[in-house]
Amino acid sequence: MLEQLSSHLQWWESSRVLRGRLYPLSSPSVFFSTHRTLHAANDGPKSLSDTPPPRRPFSRVTEEDLTFFRTLLPDRTITDPDLLESSNVDWLKSVKGSSEVLLRPQTTEEVSQILRYCNSHNLAVNPQGGNTGLVGGSVPVYDEIVLSTSLMNNILHFDDVSGILTCQSGCILENLSLYLEERGHIMPLDLGAKGSCQIGGNVATNAGGLRLLRYGSLHGTVLGLEVVLADGRVLDCLSTLRKDNTGYDLKQLFIGSEGTLGVITAVSILCPQKPKSINVVFLGCETFEQLLKTFQLSRRMLGEILSAYEFLDSECLNLLKTHLKLHNPISDCPFYIVIETQGSDPNHDEEKLHNFLEQAMTSSLVVDGTVATEEGKIKALWSMRERITEALRHDGFTYKYDISLPVERIYQLVTDMRQHLGGRAKSVVGYGHVGDGNLHLNITSPAKNPTLLAAIEPFVYEWTAKFQGSISAEHGLGLKKRNYIHYSKSSQAVALMGTIKAMLDPNGILNPYKTLPDNLK
Amino acid sequence: MLEQLSSHLQWWESSRVLRGRLYPLSSPSVFFSTHRTLHAANDGPKSLSDTPPPRRPFSRVTEEDLTFFRTLLPDRTITDPDLLESSNVDWLKSVKGSSEVLLRPQTTEEVSQILRYCNSHNLAVNPQGGNTGLVGGSVPVYDEIVLSTSLMNNILHFDDVSGILTCQSGCILENLSLYLEERGHIMPLDLGAKGSCQIGGNVATNAGGLRLLRYGSLHGTVLGLEVVLADGRVLDCLSTLRKDNTGYDLKQLFIGSEGTLGVITAVSILCPQKPKSINVVFLGCETFEQLLKTFQLSRRMLGEILSAYEFLDSECLNLLKTHLKLHNPISDCPFYIVIETQGSDPNHDEEKLHNFLEQAMTSSLVVDGTVATEEGKIKALWSMRERITEALRHDGFTYKYDISLPVERIYQLVTDMRQHLGGRAKSVVGYGHVGDGNLHLNITSPAKNPTLLAAIEPFVYEWTAKFQGSISAEHGLGLKKRNYIHYSKSSQAVALMGTIKAMLDPNGILNPYKTLPDNLK
Ligand SMILES: Cc1cc2nc3c(=O)[nH]c(=O)nc-3n(C[C@H](O)[C@H](O)[C@H](O)COP(=O)(O)OP(=O)(O)OC[C@H]3O[C@@H](n4cnc5c(N)ncnc54)[C@H](O)[C@@H]3O)c2cc1C
Ligand SMILES: Cc1cc2nc3c(=O)[nH]c(=O)nc-3n(C[C@H](O)[C@H](O)[C@H](O)COP(=O)(O)OP(=O)(O)OC[C@H]3O[C@@H](n4cnc5c(N)ncnc54)[C@H](O)[C@@H]3O)c2cc1C
Repeated sequence: MLEQLSSHLQWWESSRVLRGRLYPLSSPSVFFSTHRTLHAANDGPKSLSDTPPPRRPFSRVTEEDLTFFRTLLPDRTITDPDLLESSNVDWLKSVKGSSEVLLRPQTTEEVSQILRYCNSHNLAVNPQGGNTGLVGGSVPVYDEIVLSTSLMNNILHFDDVSGILTCQSGCILENLSLYLEERGHIMPLDLGAKGSCQIGGNVATNAGGLRLLRYGSLHGTVLGLEVVLADGRVLDCLSTLRKDNTGYDLKQLFIGSEGTLGVITAVSILCPQKPKSINVVFLGCETFEQLLKTFQLSRRMLGEILSAYEFLDSECLNLLKTHLKLHNPISDCPFYIVIETQGSDPNHDEEKLHNFLEQAMTSSLVVDGTVATEEGKIKALWSMRERITEALRHDGFTYKYDISLPVERIYQLVTDMRQHLGGRAKSVVGYGHVGDGNLHLNITSPAKNPTLLAAIEPFVYEWTAKFQGSISAEHGLGLKKRNYIHYSKSSQAVALMGTIKAMLDPNGILNPYKTLPDNLK
Repeated sequence: MLEQLSSHLQWWESSRVLRGRLYPLSSPSVFFSTHRTLHAANDGPKSLSDTPPPRRPFSRVTEEDLTFFRTLLPDRTITDPDLLESSNVDWLKSVKGSSEVLLRPQTTEEVSQILRYCNSHNLAVNPQGGNTGLVGGSVPVYDEIVLSTSLMNNILHFDDVSGILTCQSGCILENLSLYLEERGHIMPLDLGAKGSCQIGGNVATNAGGLRLLRYGSLHGTVLGLEVVLADGRVLDCLSTLRKDNTGYDLKQLFIGSEGTLGVITAVSILCPQKPKSINVVFLGCETFEQLLKTFQLSRRMLGEILSAYEFLDSECLNLLKTHLKLHNPISDCPFYIVIETQGSDPNHDEEKLHNFLEQAMTSSLVVDGTVATEEGKIKALWSMRERITEALRHDGFTYKYDISLPVERIYQLVTDMRQHLGGRAKSVVGYGHVGDGNLHLNITSPAKNPTLLAAIEPFVYEWTAKFQGSISAEHGLGLKKRNYIHYSKSSQAVALMGTIKAMLDPNGILNPYKTLPDNLK
């Protein structure tokens, strides 16, 4: 969470510097910071890939349209530019649209009427949840109408026998968590953005987050969706059943579709029991191979209580020491592990941990370690993992990659990148979710460095593609990564996505310029 | 498992009686037993619903076609009627096709060539795995070519760090289980049919089974699929990543699509650790409300080790006593619970169980109970749940319903049905997977009884629909239930399924007459 927060600050700073210069506010609607996850925006042959394509020939909002919206949503049709500002700019302050209308429906019927109207009047629509997305998907590119779900925030039902929650899509994740915790349950997902992001946005981005290792992806935990299609038809797949094999599982199509196939208006989701006990361990390893062997051992010995298995390398730890004055709680090692357990019996969990640690130590898989069982120390240990991005920010300009790989390849990318870059980078560090095969590769430089960037890309994408990795493990493609989809998906698959888009949204009014590559068809 | 086996015997017997009489073997290709899950085949106004629609105008296989297939698959193009027999008849012996060609490809490329050829020659194709499906989906209705995946049985890769298995779709579930168990893992699903069913068939039917409560559905555990589309295009979504948010998750479309959208040729799947300890408890409750409260308690106190929560009512137990001479291991109660735990530490699991039982007893949620920790006694307790269908078979002709409902409604359907039927039925019993909200409602009669059936249906479907239940919790729709889809899915949803079918299989060659209702479009 801290990681994301500091990343936010970094973006914000760089965008503030650049905004006025590159894109005067009166100019056509989109700007980028030159942040590292934007591929060579001004630095190389691929410079156009992130730039949005020209505005498509959608209609522009007329007074007549506004009259319709105001009649439908009195007081909830926003046209005041000041009020619209925060809906036009993304959380990272890296992308800015120029929408002149923000609609705030409260009911599915209202969403349906809005879309039916927009579809028949050729008006483009940008569905928006908490606007915390990291790939420029949540804000308009040009003058798309912003359809916000923020007022659709009712909990519809909770069944504390089955743990199944049904709610409108605009419920904020943290509010759902609090509601459930009072009832002995937790949400199956947890993100740094929980205070702002909405369950609809989580589903639309298929958000991963901190509990995926334990509770799996939303494709498994989401039981039902209600979705309004581009033409206003309401697709009711709001099942609250764990098992239902009557026909195709349509809701799956909308999980991770980033607002391009329909507007999610309600969600039902399976919620696990709240754990009674939480423990965190910080360990050191000599090699990444031992770190992987320790992962296997932890899965075997911690079994059902393992809830997180994260890693960082010694370069990360050096940055934490240098820039944040954090203290290494154990002796210096090439690799560090953060393990979390969540269980229903504190004594059992501690005993399992103890046995696991003894085994890991005696078999020399880990060389040092420390355990935390109370909250303060748990937080301190977690900060060794969570504050890395903050440390990186102090190290210099950072090129960040969120890569998913077969777990045995994770660190090889870091090593290969180091070798490939030679002395050109200041730091090349690796950390991430070993348990999910999700690597955060970060490369710093004293300042923004086009030559360095050209050395990193497309090397990093090609490397990832070679090992069937994903170039976006959890954030989606949105506006920013849409043209890189081919590194992770076959052309047949991309073509089929285009066919599905055309089937569900033939006029292309829903979140245009996002998720699918420009060269489609 | 026993349940399914005895159900099989029952079907087999009834169909043997009826086969010659109703459908001489030389006649057009399809016959039904008058089993209870076939809705009133000859008994009422809905009598045509299960009957297949007329043969669609597909081409008939010619000598030229056979020459093509024999060149492509020498020795693996089967036309001998004796060898074809078992591919034309389903496991329940309730449906029979009259295909004259069985193709047994070994590679994805061969499947691709077959489909490309069939699609361009307007030849219908029936994908077939282990042929254990229970809804008539796995065998041809008329003369569709049977495409069997039985020879596509190679394990392609297993990563014992991440637990991710990749294999061809024809691998038999039990073989995969054995392979994994040697490597400290288990499959995330387990079915009575495991000795015959194939992973491709499991995915195509989105099979539930015994481990769903713990490990979730295949929509969460299947990480990748390779699918050959109707026109022979190979769709490679065979990701082996836990996280990948690059575009729409296309593989989800094929999970549960029953061979109507593509032929699954390879699967990658996330496999859990093998548990070190298993315990089973048999408990008695006074009311169903207490049984549900006990479920909540078990989720709270057994937490992460709970792997099954099944129930049966006293009528079931009476049948077990009367017909199978099974002994009630505890005192007589209105409701019984079977709980299973799986964990990584035998002592911890036993202690958790002990604490849970103490709490359940002292708070009078359960009135009696017994625990088994060694294999023989575990099996004996499980047989109280697993042998119910066998007992039902001895009780008379059985009308069976596999219904999914919000968990708090499960037993109400049984009570309401009892009241509704009054004295017309011999027994009305309920049992099933409380943990999954999956009820097995069974109604017996001394003999087949059209009046009784007319009293049960459509009452049972209407009741289920009223509470947003599913009329097919885990078996799919296939041929037999295709026309009942509207009880569980909105017409918008069904229409969209039709659009998806038309998109992926415009000529409708893949598994025609299955899954989607006849009145579509
Ligand atoms: C500090 C921070 C931490 C984060 N941590 C994680 C993390 O750990 N794991 C992770 O996976 N992601 C993470 N993210 C990114 C993640 O994608 C979002 O936080 C979240 O899932 C988006 O929800 P939202 O409501 O803010 O959606 P928005 O940002 O508003 O929208 C995101 C996308 O979904 C679409 N959308 C939103 N609502 C709907 C709807 N109702 N119907 C249809 N489409 C809709 C939008 O059009 C857009 O394309 C983080 C972001 C931040 C800022
Ligand atoms: C004794 C017994 C116990 C059972 N227990 C359970 C249970 O607990 N839970 C449960 O959910 N089900 C259960 N079933 C039914 C279940 O659907 C099947 O056992 C299994 O999932 C089907 O696998 P199969 O390989 O036999 O597929 P088949 O029966 O051959 O085919 C089933 C359907 O899938 C399609 N299909 C098969 N392979 C492919 C492929 N490679 N590509 C595309 N389509 C394909 C077929 O066309 C057909 O429509 C049981 C069945 C039996 C006989």
